[in-house]
Amino acid sequence: MKNLNFDCTKINDGFWNFYNKLNRKSVVKNVYNRFKETGRFDALRCDWREGAPNKPHIFWDSDVVKWMEGVAYLMEESPEPELEALVDEMIDNIAQNQRSDGYFNSYFLSVEPSKIFTNRDWHELYCVGHAIEAAIAYHKATGKDKLLNCVLKNVDMIYRVFVEEQGAAFVTPGHEEIELALLKLYDYLGNEKHLELARFFIDQRGNNDKEEKSFQIQSNLPLREISEAVGHSVRACYLYTAMAMLAKIDGDDKLKAACNRVFDDIVNCKMSITGGVGADHTGEKFSYKYDLPNSDTYNETCAAISLAMFAGAMQEMDVNSRYGDVIERIYYNGFISGLSLDGEKFFYTNPLEIDRKKYARSTYQPICERVKVFECSCCPPNVVRMLASIPRYMYTVDGDTVYCNQFAQSETKLQINGKEAILTQTTDYPYSGKITFHYIGEPMTLYVRIPDWCVECEGDTENGFARFELSDGDSVTVDLPMEIHFIEANPYAQDNSGRYAVQRGPIVYCMEEIDNGENLRDISLLENSEKKVVCEEGIPEPVIYMGAERRPATNQLYSIKNDERVSFTARLIPYFAFANREVSDMLVWTMVK
Amino acid sequence: MKNLNFDCTKINDGFWNFYNKLNRKSVVKNVYNRFKETGRFDALRCDWREGAPNKPHIFWDSDVVKWMEGVAYLMEESPEPELEALVDEMIDNIAQNQRSDGYFNSYFLSVEPSKIFTNRDWHELYCVGHAIEAAIAYHKATGKDKLLNCVLKNVDMIYRVFVEEQGAAFVTPGHEEIELALLKLYDYLGNEKHLELARFFIDQRGNNDKEEKSFQIQSNLPLREISEAVGHSVRACYLYTAMAMLAKIDGDDKLKAACNRVFDDIVNCKMSITGGVGADHTGEKFSYKYDLPNSDTYNETCAAISLAMFAGAMQEMDVNSRYGDVIERIYYNGFISGLSLDGEKFFYTNPLEIDRKKYARSTYQPICERVKVFECSCCPPNVVRMLASIPRYMYTVDGDTVYCNQFAQSETKLQINGKEAILTQTTDYPYSGKITFHYIGEPMTLYVRIPDWCVECEGDTENGFARFELSDGDSVTVDLPMEIHFIEANPYAQDNSGRYAVQRGPIVYCMEEIDNGENLRDISLLENSEKKVVCEEGIPEPVIYMGAERRPATNQLYSIKNDERVSFTARLIPYFAFANREVSDMLVWTMVK
Repeated sequence: MKNLNFDCTKINDGFWNFYNKLNRKSVVKNVYNRFKETGRFDALRCDWREGAPNKPHIFWDSDVVKWMEGVAYLMEESPEPELEALVDEMIDNIAQNQRSDGYFNSYFLSVEPSKIFTNRDWHELYCVGHAIEAAIAYHKATGKDKLLNCVLKNVDMIYRVFVEEQGAAFVTPGHEEIELALLKLYDYLGNEKHLELARFFIDQRGNNDKEEKSFQIQSNLPLREISEAVGHSVRACYLYTAMAMLAKIDGDDKLKAACNRVFDDIVNCKMSITGGVGADHTGEKFSYKYDLPNSDTYNETCAAISLAMFAGAMQEMDVNSRYGDVIERIYYNGFISGLSLDGEKFFYTNPLEIDRKKYARSTYQPICERVKVFECSCCPPNVVRMLASIPRYMYTVDGDTVYCNQFAQSETKLQINGKEAILTQTTDYPYSGKITFHYIGEPMTLYVRIPDWCVECEGDTENGFARFELSDGDSVTVDLPMEIHFIEANPYAQDNSGRYAVQRGPIVYCMEEIDNGENLRDISLLENSEKKVVCEEGIPEPVIYMGAERRPATNQLYSIKNDERVSFTARLIPYFAFANREVSDMLVWTMVK
Repeated sequence: MKNLNFDCTKINDGFWNFYNKLNRKSVVKNVYNRFKETGRFDALRCDWREGAPNKPHIFWDSDVVKWMEGVAYLMEESPEPELEALVDEMIDNIAQNQRSDGYFNSYFLSVEPSKIFTNRDWHELYCVGHAIEAAIAYHKATGKDKLLNCVLKNVDMIYRVFVEEQGAAFVTPGHEEIELALLKLYDYLGNEKHLELARFFIDQRGNNDKEEKSFQIQSNLPLREISEAVGHSVRACYLYTAMAMLAKIDGDDKLKAACNRVFDDIVNCKMSITGGVGADHTGEKFSYKYDLPNSDTYNETCAAISLAMFAGAMQEMDVNSRYGDVIERIYYNGFISGLSLDGEKFFYTNPLEIDRKKYARSTYQPICERVKVFECSCCPPNVVRMLASIPRYMYTVDGDTVYCNQFAQSETKLQINGKEAILTQTTDYPYSGKITFHYIGEPMTLYVRIPDWCVECEGDTENGFARFELSDGDSVTVDLPMEIHFIEANPYAQDNSGRYAVQRGPIVYCMEEIDNGENLRDISLLENSEKKVVCEEGIPEPVIYMGAERRPATNQLYSIKNDERVSFTARLIPYFAFANREVSDMLVWTMVK
């Protein structure tokens, strides 16, 4: 069972087409410009010297190559000659400055060559991991092998240093990522050495005497024994992704069981309704079970992305609609909230509530406006490559059985019984829930994910999928009722007790002060009021109007409970679209009456 | 108009008698023992040398003399020969080590004599202020004038240094307190110089070029121009108390208006329902208007005490029941919450919610259990003196008009038309609201405060007081209905939106996990359920049982809103009694249905 390669599917209209176009037209270029300004590309020349501006940083290479990976995905769909020329120049710099033994990291080569592989926390293997992913993507898109060769040389060196010589100051990476990249490389080239190196890092993690046991970087236990998602959330989910990939390749039931436990822990106890994870801003880490804060949640954009990757790896191992459910939750909410609607600005963290007055006195103060670039700018290029990767998560194929996990107006080429087949989706999902599949090809079984939010859906499902037998020329329509739901969180999620999130289809809504006035937490939405779902200029999904009430203003600080209320019409916008006008307070979890 | 001296009233039964006895039997001795152990008393010998244990601290003298003040109040009621001997020994040490120019501070004399009056933040004038209060109290209780003479010499020196020579590195104290003490001294001895010195500090504050403008220590503006309570809340309220005292003495309308504005700001916008103030733990300071957090509120015990003192000064200047309302709110809730029911342990901060899981990952972690002594132990001796001072706030007298501000089973001696009169209260307030006044003496007018919580009270009031004309032998009974109320906070108090506090009479209630299970925030009290008010062993006020419900346990993290609930009987205890069993989560603001 395998996710269909993303180049098999062309999304040709609708919601994700909006974001695809935005990526190509705006995001990829804006990230380029910001990285250019801040010297990230120039750093690849490895000629920075003390006193010069734009001192490189240990993780800058990862920013650059993640952006290159995104460019490669865009190029696979249609040419981007200008971007290609830029990428080629960067690759030339890497090739020219790569050390003869294969090592490359622009920071260490130009600033601290004596410190190479001396500190587990210094992101060297992490940067190589991202370079591997970029090299594969670029080779696939262009056939050019210069970066791939650089990377292979680098991986050989890492294998020698870490596996054969054990000559580094550490055994496994402080920031995981290279494990999943090595498994992708093994999948791409079939070289057992790459599999072996990934397996080495996974087997050794939390399982050797040389390294400190650390929750923060998931080395507190041997990985086959873990049952909780802990520590830095991005590192964790990159690691869990690799674990799932390896478990599948090796048929490693213990590792698979660990993946299942940790996936359960995340999605049943530690995930915001937006799909955001990593609530604890101290250490950018997973918090305790059911700690789902709102105004001070961290929810790094990269963490949402990495959880989607983990779910994507899980759905290749296990037939269950919940992986698609999680990917959908992330993609439509806590992932794209990281990007402004004009494609220019980014959130690093994605709060579920903004209370600016409170922030003014908090030790932790998340930004209330997206910005163009961060000092630590991992998220923007991750947005570029992840937006371009949507088709990767749409279908999983197992012989003549096809699982449809995500919905979008699209055309997909696939092989059924050795013959080319075409499966199209006609839909304006998620505006409506009607999806018509049209199929041309040999007989096959189509399983369509019935989303977890679709409580009105009738009919039998298998593992959360509806089953259809399709022959050449067949069409089948699934119609998911797009009701507005009020969602409650587990009673242990104390921050949301007595409060509900509004969700329509996969989209979580929020209220902004700019529309609804001050004191958002005091608003009660009226459950039985008339609700209007309205498409409006500037937002790629409808807004919702519904009856609401709040207490009248008073000079009293304390008074006896009374039921006087002022009625008004609340305006709710998709969560992902918040903070696209002026700075405003915002709230997801509201009272309902 | 003047608050009746506290020695005029003897509380002889009921709630405050419980606390008086606890103070005498336990609190005053426990504080002594802890201070003895930590070297605070020995420090008065001024013989500490580098390398010895128990290095003195700049504010230790204030701890000691505040305790002495409390002892003096207890002695005025009945002899305490053992404590008196201890106090005399301390006073001997002070007298012996006081510098010839009158200066005394055990830290600076023994550790850093060269630093005297070089840093505004070093609490020297604050310590003298508390010594003045102790000296007055002890002189009044015993007739002994040794400490008073020390203090007078010290004050003379301060007058010379600050007013005449202006030879200190600062103009006004960094930690206010001496202003109110000097005005008490003026009231006690009538020496204009003391009044002048207090006036100097108040006039110069925020009003000279030599000192930094600082919100944190209330020197951002000349004091007659202030309209908001800002900065460190204890310092602020000690200062505001002095301002109110001076405004009354001088008939200073501008200063009085400033007091009114700042009092309004506190009680209308910045006071917890328990009377606690100073919500912002960073800087122990007032937060912005309507910021009334619960689990992370600071609400220092001393801040509640200082606000009661401010209200006490205001009620000498202005006939309005609101001052008595505030004092009552503080005394029955956020003040005595600072003391354990066995008189042994103290809270420095008084949260309105305890969520231990949340604390484990917070940068700010209030203690969940009272402790025997703090490094900075201003609160415990403040509790000793303030518990002993309750009668001071009970009556305000203006000629033959008597205002009853607080209720307690008591006998009060007063002068009406130059003749001794006796006014008794017979009551078990606040268990019941029935208070019978019996009067022996010349004809007088008695005004009885009708509390703000008593919304069921009928009949005319003047400035919030019910009026009675009493002649010799008259009795009059006031019966305040002791209903259980659900109280809501202003809609701007966003932390309490959709939540209510339970209050019976003046007493605010809370739920503890130990009685009500986990996830307190998920509980809804049932407004119309039967409520039982039950006196139980170990708590000096009744507990309340009422119907409640919570959501059933579920494995789902998110689910569609549903109305399934589990019913149970909630047990609510007085807020002041929380954390007297084992460590437990706790909640004041609950949902109500």
